[in-house]
Amino acid sequence: MSEHVTSRDLTLEEKASLTSGRDFWSLEGLERLGVPSIMVTDGPHGLRKQRTGGDHVGLTDSVPATCFPPAVGLSAAFDPDLARRVGAALGLEAAIEDVAVLLGPGINIKRSPLCGRNFEYMSEDPIVSGEIGAGLVQGIQSRGVGSSLKHFAVNNQETERLRVSADVDPRPLREIYLRGFQRVVRDAQPWTVMCSYNRINGVYASEDPWLLTDVLRGEWGFEGVVVSDWGAVDDRVAGLPAGLDLEMPSSGGRTDAQLVAAVREGRLEESALDLAADRLLELIRRAQERPAQPGPLDVDAHHALAREVAGRAIVLLKNEDALLPLAPEARLAVIGEFARTPRYQGAGSSQITPTRLDVPLEEIRALSRGEVGFAPGFTTDGSGDVAALRAEAVELAGKAEVAVVFLGLPDAAESEGYDREHIDLPADQLALLDAVLEANPRTVVVLSNGSVVALPFADRVPAILEGWLLGQAGGGALADVLLGAVNPSGRLAETIPLRLEDTPAFGNFPGEHGHVRYGEGLLVGYRWYDAKDLAVRYPFGHGLSYTSFAYGEATAALTAAGDIAVTVPVTNTGDRAGREVVQLYTALPGSSVQRPPRELKAFASVELAPGETRPVELLVRREDLAHWDVRVERWIVEGGTYTLEIGASSRDLRAAASIEVEGDPVDLPITLSSTFEELLAHPVAGPALQAALDARYGDADSHLLTMIGNFPVDRLDGFPLPRAELEEIVAAAR
Amino acid sequence: MSEHVTSRDLTLEEKASLTSGRDFWSLEGLERLGVPSIMVTDGPHGLRKQRTGGDHVGLTDSVPATCFPPAVGLSAAFDPDLARRVGAALGLEAAIEDVAVLLGPGINIKRSPLCGRNFEYMSEDPIVSGEIGAGLVQGIQSRGVGSSLKHFAVNNQETERLRVSADVDPRPLREIYLRGFQRVVRDAQPWTVMCSYNRINGVYASEDPWLLTDVLRGEWGFEGVVVSDWGAVDDRVAGLPAGLDLEMPSSGGRTDAQLVAAVREGRLEESALDLAADRLLELIRRAQERPAQPGPLDVDAHHALAREVAGRAIVLLKNEDALLPLAPEARLAVIGEFARTPRYQGAGSSQITPTRLDVPLEEIRALSRGEVGFAPGFTTDGSGDVAALRAEAVELAGKAEVAVVFLGLPDAAESEGYDREHIDLPADQLALLDAVLEANPRTVVVLSNGSVVALPFADRVPAILEGWLLGQAGGGALADVLLGAVNPSGRLAETIPLRLEDTPAFGNFPGEHGHVRYGEGLLVGYRWYDAKDLAVRYPFGHGLSYTSFAYGEATAALTAAGDIAVTVPVTNTGDRAGREVVQLYTALPGSSVQRPPRELKAFASVELAPGETRPVELLVRREDLAHWDVRVERWIVEGGTYTLEIGASSRDLRAAASIEVEGDPVDLPITLSSTFEELLAHPVAGPALQAALDARYGDADSHLLTMIGNFPVDRLDGFPLPRAELEEIVAAAR
Repeated sequence: MSEHVTSRDLTLEEKASLTSGRDFWSLEGLERLGVPSIMVTDGPHGLRKQRTGGDHVGLTDSVPATCFPPAVGLSAAFDPDLARRVGAALGLEAAIEDVAVLLGPGINIKRSPLCGRNFEYMSEDPIVSGEIGAGLVQGIQSRGVGSSLKHFAVNNQETERLRVSADVDPRPLREIYLRGFQRVVRDAQPWTVMCSYNRINGVYASEDPWLLTDVLRGEWGFEGVVVSDWGAVDDRVAGLPAGLDLEMPSSGGRTDAQLVAAVREGRLEESALDLAADRLLELIRRAQERPAQPGPLDVDAHHALAREVAGRAIVLLKNEDALLPLAPEARLAVIGEFARTPRYQGAGSSQITPTRLDVPLEEIRALSRGEVGFAPGFTTDGSGDVAALRAEAVELAGKAEVAVVFLGLPDAAESEGYDREHIDLPADQLALLDAVLEANPRTVVVLSNGSVVALPFADRVPAILEGWLLGQAGGGALADVLLGAVNPSGRLAETIPLRLEDTPAFGNFPGEHGHVRYGEGLLVGYRWYDAKDLAVRYPFGHGLSYTSFAYGEATAALTAAGDIAVTVPVTNTGDRAGREVVQLYTALPGSSVQRPPRELKAFASVELAPGETRPVELLVRREDLAHWDVRVERWIVEGGTYTLEIGASSRDLRAAASIEVEGDPVDLPITLSSTFEELLAHPVAGPALQAALDARYGDADSHLLTMIGNFPVDRLDGFPLPRAELEEIVAAAR
Repeated sequence: MSEHVTSRDLTLEEKASLTSGRDFWSLEGLERLGVPSIMVTDGPHGLRKQRTGGDHVGLTDSVPATCFPPAVGLSAAFDPDLARRVGAALGLEAAIEDVAVLLGPGINIKRSPLCGRNFEYMSEDPIVSGEIGAGLVQGIQSRGVGSSLKHFAVNNQETERLRVSADVDPRPLREIYLRGFQRVVRDAQPWTVMCSYNRINGVYASEDPWLLTDVLRGEWGFEGVVVSDWGAVDDRVAGLPAGLDLEMPSSGGRTDAQLVAAVREGRLEESALDLAADRLLELIRRAQERPAQPGPLDVDAHHALAREVAGRAIVLLKNEDALLPLAPEARLAVIGEFARTPRYQGAGSSQITPTRLDVPLEEIRALSRGEVGFAPGFTTDGSGDVAALRAEAVELAGKAEVAVVFLGLPDAAESEGYDREHIDLPADQLALLDAVLEANPRTVVVLSNGSVVALPFADRVPAILEGWLLGQAGGGALADVLLGAVNPSGRLAETIPLRLEDTPAFGNFPGEHGHVRYGEGLLVGYRWYDAKDLAVRYPFGHGLSYTSFAYGEATAALTAAGDIAVTVPVTNTGDRAGREVVQLYTALPGSSVQRPPRELKAFASVELAPGETRPVELLVRREDLAHWDVRVERWIVEGGTYTLEIGASSRDLRAAASIEVEGDPVDLPITLSSTFEELLAHPVAGPALQAALDARYGDADSHLLTMIGNFPVDRLDGFPLPRAELEEIVAAAR
């Protein structure tokens, strides 16, 4: 392909043809000019390249690829470097298969635990989402393969996902739902961004010029291609000039013809088509520059990485009396079908064919030196003789030193395409656990689930491992953690609530009749539970270790760039090497705008030998202190003394500091529409108004201002002061 | 004034002059044509006619009038007939003072307990607000005096009230915030409606043609005059054609001139001015038709009515071991400054000069035959020697058989003009109560507050009377209830929550920077607590009696008009005459739209002698079953089996019935934008689509539909079926 092909070399029809797919997974090329067709495929946690001759969508038949932990697992490691390594592995597998762009990562906010696709997303927090997402993008693109940051934007449910309007106010839109995207675009420049199916405040993401052009390119500096989610185009002629460069999949030429006709009829500027075509030519050019990656894939090496990552993803929720790790020689009862038939990825477009699959039961047997019995206890589809399965499991548990019960959500419980209606584990699993507990109180629960489940048994079970979905090597990783080969360090990137009714979006999810109101505003995730002082099952950021950590005194200083550099010494006070995820939350007491009690702004994952102390450095970017000021429609850092809370979870804060930050100027002129209170607060207008009121009313004016203090000063004509007098005061203040 | 003066007789300037006030409290007349100037005054719970020569607003100096219980008290009686009697008395007082229109009632929904003006409003429920409001309007207007239904609309806070936009979705707007106004307009035709200060979804109420014309007149059939709240006009030239007939107060001719200029310059249709002028002429004509009401006012009779109403307003929240009523000869310790200095009305434009004032302490002494000691215990402004006041009260309590502690909010805690920031009683009062309780556990708490307060002591105090603000005769009424001359029957028209953090608007109140998001949607008041299954201190509708009531079996039948007539026998099972407020809540299990678990649709207040049984009849209007369907933008009654729960409070349900209701038709045509799921649910398209899918995919289609069931059928061009095939199926369905 020539370096010099540009839109100027193309006919109108050729330009239009470039802006939609050749088929389901390929972009259009131009044989005449030597522009090749490139391939894009699904794959946030593993390559899903459709096997030739499969069904259109290729859901059921793709070439084998390493199944890394889906986003729900990866993000629990709270480690962008780890995400970068996973991204590099994904990029390598894509390169070997000659795939130009991998369609991920997905970083939408987990607004409700009910969202069927939460397992593909990172967190309820935008900084975690943005940091892990940026790591993945950097990793993938380090191999000369493009990524596709998705689903842009505010796609937080599956119900009515192709038509629903996410109705969200400016501050949560900017500070929660777009903040992670902004970070990934700025820090990692993904080659492509994938627009979402839904509407935002009434406008389809696929045809929203504010979203795709003003914000994404204008404010954030995105330089790549915007591609539609598969089928997200409602109106191609509206979408193209809004900033949607590429429609996928192919429309069979139907919408290309619409573009051509629109240009011919003067309804569409040809320059918009030039812009999109040039961006696509540039994407194809970059794809061609990829260094050759000779196959075949080193399956073992990538499987080992998948196991390492899965080990980092597992969250130790509870560990009473140090029940875990299990003694190597302990007589174990492994119970639950998921121990034999692991649930390791989610259903939908991200579902891949793994290169191999670790089975937890086998891996436990491989690591343990004791007797390891097994009983399925239940079936994942509720079939079979429930009573007999349970009886068998209970008997086994009664004879063991420790029972390890694998519970989880069956495949059908959560998927792309639909949302859940509750957060409960299947009733037969809960009943099984109760029966096992009665037979053997020394019971460990291991969970497999793509999104949060209620844990009504948490107070009665001594140890719980949240295993999320761990990819193809999750079985080995679970054995590693259970038996102590790996010291767990995963943290909750999403709050585990006590009840569905307590969750922020309850009553506003999934909406109806084409609209969903984001009524909780800024109070998403832990921001909600903290603001309402609500009890939760396990808080955001929570996760235990087999060792313990102590925090020293934190110090904070401003950098030359205006960021906040925080250092806190952390010591491993136990007798085992371990990893601590140090979290930093900020607040601004007395802020002039609504703020959650605390917001995560930085985190670091550090490995410490027993007894080792290390100064952990955390950087709070100045831009992350900013809120979206709706009066001036820009980011504003409010001046004041910010508190910095540092700890092991959002509700286990161990150190604190504070720092004075200078604010950004906001100029709001005094006018006749300003209120009496606003005038009184003004350095010039205030004294003048007070003097005028005193002259006329003496002491009575305070009572008067109680009633009319929030009136624009010109509203009650001539009262309490003549208009001319007010005009003079206002004029003097400007 | 001639019957025949119309806008055709007026010059352009004269028409404009009619549409704004002559001064603060008078409308403009037209001497040339014998059109008199009429007077309007504040007065939802008593006439506030400015004394000649007072300040402009007349806040501090009005002619004496009977101070009936403010809306917060009146509505607690749950009795529209009682409201009608109060209205008639208010109308009479207005007539005697030659006031043409009384500026009330206010029926805004109590969205948050923090709203500073809640004491002027009825309830968190629109049916209660509408029923009590309609009763008041009917009563006032029965005297030939007009009322002014206010504040129209969605004015639920004082913070930034002149500029804030209440951002509320269509269903809560219609079903919660407008429903009460709709009821009063339809049932009682108020002479005037007063528009509110705020904006609704960005548009000032004072210039919203949708609100003031389409809905109010077009849909509801309002025939009167729309008047601005005092100072609510932001743009007079925009407001007039939107439906704002009258600007108050006078702009000194400034905005009249704007109207004239706008007509002359073709920016305003003169016909809009004609319409407003004719409505004003009609209002003035009606005012002239009022039969003469000779004064002076029978102060005693109206005071007696005020005492009766106050007795009906008091809510007995708790009465352990039948501590109340007090024995006539009991030795009492009356404690709390409010017993000597009652708080009986709220601050702001509704504050009036009462004709007299009952003092609770004196009234208790008048009714009691025992020794009645008094100690103030605290001062309402926190001044004085707190320790000494407390010690004196504790000593008194220790010597008494029963302590009666008057707690409450001081005047400054709640007012028009600003909102509260918490719902706590002053700390010194709570500390006093704790000390008294220690000295004497037989303690009754009597509360004086205009809006809900937290009751952290509720579990430790045996008896609590919620006295709200009770007007000038509240002291006598409290004595009546304490000593058993009146058997309490008031009910909570607003939930008493456990904590401010539990309230529906928490996190969305009072908004900032010009916007407040009604994020809780439909879940206002008890609808929220029930949907979230949240514990409350005392639920909506709660209120005890000195007797007890039993409910028999309920029966329900449809009337010819399609309403639901419900009958339930209620028996007074105690030994004392009493009044029960029977409440009916509906639900529609399996509804296709969001619904709270139960919604009040009817209530009745019945007096029963000891042992008496009466069949209580409740009528649920068909229109009250309807929800606002945003797809077709109209009220739709959904067909199905409605449950009817009948009881003594929203959480004390004693009888139930159910009834099948036929739904309204909603025609939503099948198109290519319909989803696969919608097509499959269609009687014609469904089988055709299924057959086409089966032919092509066999068994695989169910998996496919999981993923793309919510796709519009034309979104994936040619997949899973050729476009032509889909077009044919859709065409056949139409």
